[in-house]
Amino acid sequence: MSNDTFLAAARALLGERGLTTDPDLLDPWLTDWRGRFTGRALALASPASTAEVSALVKLCGEHEVPVVPQGGNSGMCGGATPDKGGRAILLSLRRMNAVREFDPDARRIVCEAGVILQTLHDTVEGSGLRFPLTLGGKGSATVGGLVSTNAGGTQVLRHGSMREQVLGLEAVLADGSVFSGLVPLKKDNRGWDLKQLLIGSEGTLGIVTAATLRLVPAVAERVVIWAGVPSLEGARELLLHCEDAAGSALEGFEVLAQSTLDDVVAHLPGARQPLGERHAWHALIELVADRAGAAALPALAGTMLEGALERGLLEDAVIAANETQAEAFWLLRDSIAPAEREKGPAVQHDISVPTEKMPRFVEAAVPILERDWPGTEAVAFGHLGDGNVHFHVIAPPGVDALTWHAGDGKNISAQVYDLVTHWGGSISAEHGIGQLKLGELERLADPVHLALLRQVKRALDPAGLLNPGKLVAPEDGASGALAPAPATL
Amino acid sequence: MSNDTFLAAARALLGERGLTTDPDLLDPWLTDWRGRFTGRALALASPASTAEVSALVKLCGEHEVPVVPQGGNSGMCGGATPDKGGRAILLSLRRMNAVREFDPDARRIVCEAGVILQTLHDTVEGSGLRFPLTLGGKGSATVGGLVSTNAGGTQVLRHGSMREQVLGLEAVLADGSVFSGLVPLKKDNRGWDLKQLLIGSEGTLGIVTAATLRLVPAVAERVVIWAGVPSLEGARELLLHCEDAAGSALEGFEVLAQSTLDDVVAHLPGARQPLGERHAWHALIELVADRAGAAALPALAGTMLEGALERGLLEDAVIAANETQAEAFWLLRDSIAPAEREKGPAVQHDISVPTEKMPRFVEAAVPILERDWPGTEAVAFGHLGDGNVHFHVIAPPGVDALTWHAGDGKNISAQVYDLVTHWGGSISAEHGIGQLKLGELERLADPVHLALLRQVKRALDPAGLLNPGKLVAPEDGASGALAPAPATL
Repeated sequence: MSNDTFLAAARALLGERGLTTDPDLLDPWLTDWRGRFTGRALALASPASTAEVSALVKLCGEHEVPVVPQGGNSGMCGGATPDKGGRAILLSLRRMNAVREFDPDARRIVCEAGVILQTLHDTVEGSGLRFPLTLGGKGSATVGGLVSTNAGGTQVLRHGSMREQVLGLEAVLADGSVFSGLVPLKKDNRGWDLKQLLIGSEGTLGIVTAATLRLVPAVAERVVIWAGVPSLEGARELLLHCEDAAGSALEGFEVLAQSTLDDVVAHLPGARQPLGERHAWHALIELVADRAGAAALPALAGTMLEGALERGLLEDAVIAANETQAEAFWLLRDSIAPAEREKGPAVQHDISVPTEKMPRFVEAAVPILERDWPGTEAVAFGHLGDGNVHFHVIAPPGVDALTWHAGDGKNISAQVYDLVTHWGGSISAEHGIGQLKLGELERLADPVHLALLRQVKRALDPAGLLNPGKLVAPEDGASGALAPAPATL
Repeated sequence: MSNDTFLAAARALLGERGLTTDPDLLDPWLTDWRGRFTGRALALASPASTAEVSALVKLCGEHEVPVVPQGGNSGMCGGATPDKGGRAILLSLRRMNAVREFDPDARRIVCEAGVILQTLHDTVEGSGLRFPLTLGGKGSATVGGLVSTNAGGTQVLRHGSMREQVLGLEAVLADGSVFSGLVPLKKDNRGWDLKQLLIGSEGTLGIVTAATLRLVPAVAERVVIWAGVPSLEGARELLLHCEDAAGSALEGFEVLAQSTLDDVVAHLPGARQPLGERHAWHALIELVADRAGAAALPALAGTMLEGALERGLLEDAVIAANETQAEAFWLLRDSIAPAEREKGPAVQHDISVPTEKMPRFVEAAVPILERDWPGTEAVAFGHLGDGNVHFHVIAPPGVDALTWHAGDGKNISAQVYDLVTHWGGSISAEHGIGQLKLGELERLADPVHLALLRQVKRALDPAGLLNPGKLVAPEDGASGALAPAPATL
C-alpha cells in the first residue's frame, strides 16, 4: 500500500486540522529542542481525542507505519524525534489539552496528554492545592511527555518522580485498543499494576492520552537556607540530620561546589556569595509547610539548624530573610547551567547512584576524569537527596566544540557511564534513554534487564511500530524500525 | 521424563534438607490457612539460596514441572496452594530467611523472601526506625509473599501498600535467570520500572527471592481518637478535615457502624462503648509523630478536633488518655472479625471504589443486598481513607453454613462484585486474585486489562509453569496448567 493511500485514510479520520504534510508546520517538530537529532516523517498527526488516537494507531498498524508520539518536544534524549527513514508518522498530543476533571476535594486532576505543565500549575493555583512536580521546561513539557518519561525535578526528595503522581492512566495500545485506567483506586490488587508499564516507557508500549494526577496541599510557608559544609560527605550528613529533624517538611536539598558557585557569581549580574567565608561545598535547603504546619515551621527550622551547629555539621548557614532573598538563593542554583555554558563545551551526564554512595562516587570520579583528560574540569551538582547529580565535564579551554564532542567528549561520557555502572548506578536518572543513550544502555545494562525490556516490548508491540529505535533496541526482523527509507520520500 | 528422574535431579540440587516428599512434612502446606483450597504436589522444595531457586526453576522448565511458590501460606485467595493435579512442585521460600543488610543510616533493609514480617519489625526495633506496614498475619506472612501480593494493612493511608515500601527486588524468572534489582536507586529512568511487574504478580511472572525495603522514623508519640459521626459521608468529611489539619501526622482512619460496634462490645469480655451516646458511624483516628514532631502532636490533635467541632463534623469524640485506652480502642477495631464469626456464616469482600464514592457506595449497596437476600445483614468497615472497606454479608440466622456458602453466598458475592464494578471499583483491594477470584476477574474485568495481563504473562512465562491457574487464566495449549493429572500420582 502506498503512502498516499495511508495519508488519505488518515486525513479522512482526523480531518484537515488533524493531519498535515506541510513542511512549514511539520519541520519545526522534527528536530529535538537541543538540536541533536533531526528526523523525517510522513506527516504530522494531531488527533483531538482518544478515539482519534485509537483509530489512527489502528490504521498505522494496518499500513505498517511507525508512530512517534510527541508532547512538548522538550525531552533531553531525542525520544520524540523520528529517525531519518521518513516512514513514520509524528503523532502530536498537543491538541488533546483538556483538563477533563478537577476535584479539589478529592485532591485530584484528570489531564489529557497535551496539557502543559505550567497550565496544570495555573489551573490548580488558588485552590489551596498544588501539583508537586516542576522542572525547567514547564512552559512546554506536557503531561503525556512527563508520564512517558517519568520526569523528575527538584521536588522529588519529598514528593517523588512523576510515577508517584500518577493515580490513573489512559493509553492507546499498539493494536489501537484503549487501556482505561483513569479511575483512581488507592488499593487495587487485580494483578500487577499495568499502568506502571506505561510510565517511563517513552511511547514504546503505548501512547498516553490522559492521566489522573494527585495534588497536595499548597505551600503556606517556606524557609530557604544556604549552608556551607566542609565536604560532600558532610553535606550528606547534614541531609540526614535535616531529614531527622524536619521530617516531611524537607522539600529540597541541592548541592554545589565552591568552584561552581564562583562560576555562577561571575556569570550572574549582581549576584553575590550567600556566605561570608568560602566552603568546599554548599547546600541549598528548602523547608515547606502547608496551612496545618505553617505556624510551627520557623521554630522547626531553627531547631534543625541549632542541632546541626551543635553536631558540627555546619560551617556556616544563613536563612533567607524574605521571599526576595529566597528567590535569589534559588536563582544561584538555577544559573549553574547557563554559567557553565559560558565556560565552553561540556559533556553532561544525568546519573544516579545509591544516595549514601554519592559523595564517595563524586570524590572518586572527579580526579580520575581530570587526570585522564588533562585540561578538563569535572563538576557535580544537584539533587544529593535523590542520589542524583548532574555530572558535567567541561572541555579544556580553546578546543573546537564540534571536534571535541565527537572525539574526547564521547569517550569521556563512556568513561563516566562505566564508573556509574561500576558503582551500581544508573546512566539515566531523570532524562530517560530515547535514542541518545540507547547504545550505552545496550552496552552496560544487565542482560537480564535488557531481555525483560525486549520481552515486554515484543509482547505489547509485536510489529515494533511504537516509537521504534527508542529505549529498546529494534530486533532483527521487526517491521518498522530497521526498514530502509523508501526512495520516494 | 518421569517424576522420579526429576525428583532425583532436584534432590541432587537441593540436598536432603531442601527437598521432601514425606506427606507429614508436605501435607500441612497443601491447604490454605482458611481451609478453602487443598491441592497436591510432587514434593516440597525448600531452597536455601537464590542460586538454588534459580537452578530448581531451570530444572522445572526442562521437565515441564509447574512451580507454586509459597511464603507463610497466610494468603486469603489460595494463591499459594497448588491445584489438585499433583504435577507441581511446592517451592517454599521459608528457608531463605536472612536479613542480608540493615542500614539504619540509609533507612533501608534487605530481606530475603522468607523473612517473617514480625521478625522484620523486631530487627528494626530500637534503631529509631520502623517498617511502616503491618497486618493481622504478621507472625507468618513473609516478605516474599507480601511483595508478591502487594499487601496492605492499616497504615496504607499514610505509607502506602507494599509496592511503596519496595526500593529494590531480586527475583528468579521463568527461565531461571536472576533479575538483580536490589540496589536502591531513588531515580532510575532506564526504561519502565521492571520490578513493578513482579510486585503483586502472585508468583506468576517470577519468584521473589529478596527485597530492599524502606524504613521510616519510629513513632515517638501517638494520639488515638474515637469519634462519633452522623453518617458515612460525615465520616468522609471528617477525614478530609483531618487530612487538612493534621497533614502527614494522620496515620490511620478506620470506620465502623454502630451496629458493628454493638456486636463487638457484646462479643468482647469487658469491652464498653467508647462514647456515651449512640452514633450512626464511628471513626477510629490515629495521629503519630516521629521525634521531630512529637512535642507538637498533642496541640495539633487538639486544633484538629476543635476545628472539626466548630465545623459540625463531629457529634462527639474522646482522646485516649493513655496507651492502655489507645490499645483498647484498637482492640475494638480488631475484634470486628471474631465478633462477626460468632453471628454465623458470612461472605466477605475485600473491595475498593474511589475514596470519595465509598460512602455513597455503601449507602446504596447495603439496602440492595438486604432487600434481595432477606434475613441477611450487610456490614461495611475498615479503611475509609483508602476507599477500601471490608464488605461482609452475614447469613440469615440458622442457615447451614456449607449449603448457604455454596448457594446464596456465591450469588451474593457475584452481586457485590457487579455493584463494585458498576461503581468503577476493584473486586480485590488488598488480598489479590489467586484462585479464589480468578473466575470473577475474568467475568468482570475490562477485556483490554485481561489481554494485557495475558500478553505479559505469555512473554515472561511462555510455558505457563509459574504458579499456573492463579491470577491469569491458563491459555489453551499452555503446558503446565491445563494438562490432566498423571494417573500415577
